[in-house]
Amino acid sequence: MRVAVVGATGYTGLELMKILVAHPKVEVTMITSETYKGQAFSQVFPAFRGVYQETLKGLIPEALASRAELVFLCLPHGSSMKVLPALLDTGLKVIDLSGDFRFKDPKVYETWYHMGHEAPQLLKDAVFGLPELFPATIAQARLLANPGCYVTGVVLALAPLLKARWIYPTPIFADCKSGVTGGGRKPSQRFHFPECNESLTPYSIGQHRHQPEMEEALGAFAGTKPQILFSPHLVPMNRGIISTVYTRVREEKAQVLSLEDVHELYISFYAPCPFVRILPLREMPNTHDVRGSNFCDIGLVWSKRTGTLVIASALDNLVKGASGQAVQNMNLMGGFPETIGLLRPGEVI
Amino acid sequence: MRVAVVGATGYTGLELMKILVAHPKVEVTMITSETYKGQAFSQVFPAFRGVYQETLKGLIPEALASRAELVFLCLPHGSSMKVLPALLDTGLKVIDLSGDFRFKDPKVYETWYHMGHEAPQLLKDAVFGLPELFPATIAQARLLANPGCYVTGVVLALAPLLKARWIYPTPIFADCKSGVTGGGRKPSQRFHFPECNESLTPYSIGQHRHQPEMEEALGAFAGTKPQILFSPHLVPMNRGIISTVYTRVREEKAQVLSLEDVHELYISFYAPCPFVRILPLREMPNTHDVRGSNFCDIGLVWSKRTGTLVIASALDNLVKGASGQAVQNMNLMGGFPETIGLLRPGEVI
Amino acid sequence: MRVAVVGATGYTGLELMKILVAHPKVEVTMITSETYKGQAFSQVFPAFRGVYQETLKGLIPEALASRAELVFLCLPHGSSMKVLPALLDTGLKVIDLSGDFRFKDPKVYETWYHMGHEAPQLLKDAVFGLPELFPATIAQARLLANPGCYVTGVVLALAPLLKARWIYPTPIFADCKSGVTGGGRKPSQRFHFPECNESLTPYSIGQHRHQPEMEEALGAFAGTKPQILFSPHLVPMNRGIISTVYTRVREEKAQVLSLEDVHELYISFYAPCPFVRILPLREMPNTHDVRGSNFCDIGLVWSKRTGTLVIASALDNLVKGASGQAVQNMNLMGGFPETIGLLRPGEVI
Amino acid sequence: MRVAVVGATGYTGLELMKILVAHPKVEVTMITSETYKGQAFSQVFPAFRGVYQETLKGLIPEALASRAELVFLCLPHGSSMKVLPALLDTGLKVIDLSGDFRFKDPKVYETWYHMGHEAPQLLKDAVFGLPELFPATIAQARLLANPGCYVTGVVLALAPLLKARWIYPTPIFADCKSGVTGGGRKPSQRFHFPECNESLTPYSIGQHRHQPEMEEALGAFAGTKPQILFSPHLVPMNRGIISTVYTRVREEKAQVLSLEDVHELYISFYAPCPFVRILPLREMPNTHDVRGSNFCDIGLVWSKRTGTLVIASALDNLVKGASGQAVQNMNLMGGFPETIGLLRPGEVI
Repeated sequence: MRVAVVGATGYTGLELMKILVAHPKVEVTMITSETYKGQAFSQVFPAFRGVYQETLKGLIPEALASRAELVFLCLPHGSSMKVLPALLDTGLKVIDLSGDFRFKDPKVYETWYHMGHEAPQLLKDAVFGLPELFPATIAQARLLANPGCYVTGVVLALAPLLKARWIYPTPIFADCKSGVTGGGRKPSQRFHFPECNESLTPYSIGQHRHQPEMEEALGAFAGTKPQILFSPHLVPMNRGIISTVYTRVREEKAQVLSLEDVHELYISFYAPCPFVRILPLREMPNTHDVRGSNFCDIGLVWSKRTGTLVIASALDNLVKGASGQAVQNMNLMGGFPETIGLLRPGEVI
Repeated sequence: MRVAVVGATGYTGLELMKILVAHPKVEVTMITSETYKGQAFSQVFPAFRGVYQETLKGLIPEALASRAELVFLCLPHGSSMKVLPALLDTGLKVIDLSGDFRFKDPKVYETWYHMGHEAPQLLKDAVFGLPELFPATIAQARLLANPGCYVTGVVLALAPLLKARWIYPTPIFADCKSGVTGGGRKPSQRFHFPECNESLTPYSIGQHRHQPEMEEALGAFAGTKPQILFSPHLVPMNRGIISTVYTRVREEKAQVLSLEDVHELYISFYAPCPFVRILPLREMPNTHDVRGSNFCDIGLVWSKRTGTLVIASALDNLVKGASGQAVQNMNLMGGFPETIGLLRPGEVI
Repeated sequence: MRVAVVGATGYTGLELMKILVAHPKVEVTMITSETYKGQAFSQVFPAFRGVYQETLKGLIPEALASRAELVFLCLPHGSSMKVLPALLDTGLKVIDLSGDFRFKDPKVYETWYHMGHEAPQLLKDAVFGLPELFPATIAQARLLANPGCYVTGVVLALAPLLKARWIYPTPIFADCKSGVTGGGRKPSQRFHFPECNESLTPYSIGQHRHQPEMEEALGAFAGTKPQILFSPHLVPMNRGIISTVYTRVREEKAQVLSLEDVHELYISFYAPCPFVRILPLREMPNTHDVRGSNFCDIGLVWSKRTGTLVIASALDNLVKGASGQAVQNMNLMGGFPETIGLLRPGEVI
Repeated sequence: MRVAVVGATGYTGLELMKILVAHPKVEVTMITSETYKGQAFSQVFPAFRGVYQETLKGLIPEALASRAELVFLCLPHGSSMKVLPALLDTGLKVIDLSGDFRFKDPKVYETWYHMGHEAPQLLKDAVFGLPELFPATIAQARLLANPGCYVTGVVLALAPLLKARWIYPTPIFADCKSGVTGGGRKPSQRFHFPECNESLTPYSIGQHRHQPEMEEALGAFAGTKPQILFSPHLVPMNRGIISTVYTRVREEKAQVLSLEDVHELYISFYAPCPFVRILPLREMPNTHDVRGSNFCDIGLVWSKRTGTLVIASALDNLVKGASGQAVQNMNLMGGFPETIGLLRPGEVI
């Protein structure tokens, strides 16, 4: 498949390029960047010298349509919705990695992104790209909204339990810890090495835009919309998210529940999903085991005393949390095997 | 005051030495180490060359008693209880940084530390050394049990709310993230640089020995013993703990509560406490602001929608979480101003 | 090609496995470990769950010979020479990643490794596996000695200049800085996270075993054995080596030399080498551009004032400095394209 | 002594404030910042809450003169020379931490800083503030030019040998590795956490402004101006510089030299200097042993084979390399004991 990457010089673009240049079914025929157009990709990222030689172009929908069948849109929130309609009009399929098309209701978008939506007519047809939950609709999608990094980790942690109705849907506490690449490539005081290094902090508790996205995705899947209190934390490392999710088991269920029951539920639920690994009983996930890979690892704890199930998931925010998942979606949309081009182990070191 | 440090070559011993050599009211007259006895402290830690020249000795209670009035015991759990009775018998005051004397009931110790207690007769007189909660008894203590690092962060986060009875005492979720010095100085695969670096993981959820310690301290202070589900996480940095604590507000209170109310409660509660800093509204703590200092910073979030108060505290696990707090306790026990030798800002960088 | 990995659970073994499981021409048919035999590789490294399922075996030469054509030996120095003769006797080709077969003269080995050589009869046939310098002999090798990580970076930096005889062969200063994975997987105080993190130190200046290896390889290639003073440094990061090499230009040459001349020399020398990237004039290499890749990047500085040429090379110590280079050698020995299975860009982030 | 800090919100200002607020002979009576004036220092750096309450003012020389006897100038290069004459005119003593007054010849400044010097008349009276070399003139200084961080490490490494004339003064290779705080507080792509973390790179080899500064300071001290090729490297950690300096011993000296001779030379040379620690034979310095301290640790290697002496020094770039040294200079200028307020051990962890 011939594909293009729009906005190839941010971190999701960079990560996508790493995956795509090695993907056996893909040819990257065009890449764009407003900031760097005219430069070779390998000038912006010297790491690509000797691997990929193309030059960055400006964004012209017709040019993209003439060279590619599918476009990955790696633009900031607010920019995607400006260019996406024209891209769809050319007949291109689009995988959008921004937050612009992840909500059905433009009002929700406006509340959480603090701007009006400029293409609300497309929202109803946009498919939410979490392949473990919505594989069938993804395979048919023309406009795919790739989920947020935190969202992927929390939704995968909760989906089996919510679907089985073993837990109360509200409140759920999602305490998430992310590496710094999640903040993007733009320098700022907060991400300045000396102040970010050896530093740990919570931020935007209950106010992060991924919170309503988690709720909407889980509601759509499980039929009941949960209320999640989402607490993100910034951790001084490059990649990886641990989501530690606290849920209360329904009283009648709690009396009979065993950890083995929960483990079996998860094993069975994710049996068809090659990228979700349910860890053996009593093992906890570690970001280094998923680093650079498209896996999401899940560990489980049952605290009978407090009636609480804790689900801990680990993923690489740039791979399963962004670009790897985008390629997984592309595989489904293109009719390829789901794992093709994506089956690497975590890096460990 | 003449003091001695027993077990001076672990991380709490090292940190204590940094504070004590600069303390205007203290002379460190003796230091001991079984592993390194006969070596100069500055051979074990070349960082102390030119600052402190003493040689490490073996542990002989009479020798300690002849040279010091107070001993800091920086031994591993299980070792403290073996030597502490003999030290007390000489008339020395003892500040114990291990977990051996933090519980009133030896059965609790045995359950969580998996060994029998060898000096249960001393437990009732041991004073739990959290100066913000128990200043009066600390001032009179002869045997002081210095609290665990996680315990300090969680207890300081919860004490005002539990005392005021604004929240349900159970269940409370304490999601804590700690730097690696919390694991001590002994090398292991888990703390091997390449596998620990760039790696994040939860561990011992609901099973960590600091969980019953939190509950006992808060119960003793507030009159109601809470049930806490404690989830520690290992973060790839040297120092610092963020404790993010989730509590449910009592229903009748929740209807009228504002964030300002909670803020005022904390400001007022901690007004007499020089080392607890309640952050301005909507600010969150950051470990780099407490690094190397004895401060504990606290930020507050009120999620009306879910009826949940989130309290986030930050401290340096080796200072306010261990050796700084031990010196704060020594200051109280010695009749010195509480802040003497301890009033450094956080390091930031 | 069917290959086996002996000693698969150290860092070079782990890195080799990452490359081999994705290599289109290779099937890994057997892996061994004395420490972990009987366990699945994915138990030792959970990162491989869902990717590679084999169980670790004990080392039995006949078993290896019946299942593989080529063996990668990832054993510590001193262990390789004990098992290698028996492996060769079965007809297996062997790529040895230890230092045991890198010197022609067993006395040199004994001087620098402080033990007698147990298979000196094999030294003369062992081929030094630096593909950029010795591609023809490598293609014919049955026993290949894969170079040391530091050696690769310094030798690639110096080879063109020494061959061209533009510099004095003695003394040359090689100031090298390495990430911590170079020290292996065994925990120790020195590599304990809290003491290694945020810490930088030189070690073994003039006494490291890679120093005579650099000299022997360059001597064999250039016809003149240089004298190198090699200074390694430990840097608090996982991967990567920067070698900053200081050479004096021969007086007559210095008067006419320009940086452009040197640049052209390097470009031309490395034109046939897909994994050496000579950077544009005045650019310096960065470990993040080679991280996870088999590239070695080289930058050049000409200080006319002091008559000194500085060559700075960057590589990933576990890839081009160890396991990637081993696979590059395997590609040559197996008659495959040199880059197959190895052409990934550096990771950057 | 009443002192003021101008430009208190950069990293050297921040570090200076940490030292000064704990200095028993100092009261910080005024702090200024153009960017943050009107804000409390503890708003800019919340780490100082509870420790220091003053508000940042604008820079008005008369106001400074009315409240302080000595001013620390922590402004960027180019800004210091604009305000310094007016400050001196008020009678204030000034310690300038920028590079503006470190050269005697304004042409050297103009060549390396690429701007004209605006107060050349002051250069001849400015005293270069390296207390180990120039204690007498420092004690009398009214305008003190505090040395660069790299300069301090390299000059302390070389001074004894150059003075003793045991080595050839040219060429000398100074391969230095610095933590990221050396680059200042301003965010940029290069210092963006994800690209700086796990990344190592040389930069500005032979072109850094500290190179002529090293040569001038050593020339002034030893009577012979050396030629140094200075190679800085950026290391992914916050603080610390290792300078590994390569020098050739004069031929006649080399034949009789022993490492012990060199060691004695350094011990004797630095005997009066409380902040220089000559390590025991065959020990190498480590940045973690000087972190947060004003010490400079020095280790020595004698390579008889190549006739080369290697000197490795370690210091904290923000303390002995900047603000600690500024306070050491202030101590001398104020007639205080040299070590007062500065005698902390390195942090180790």
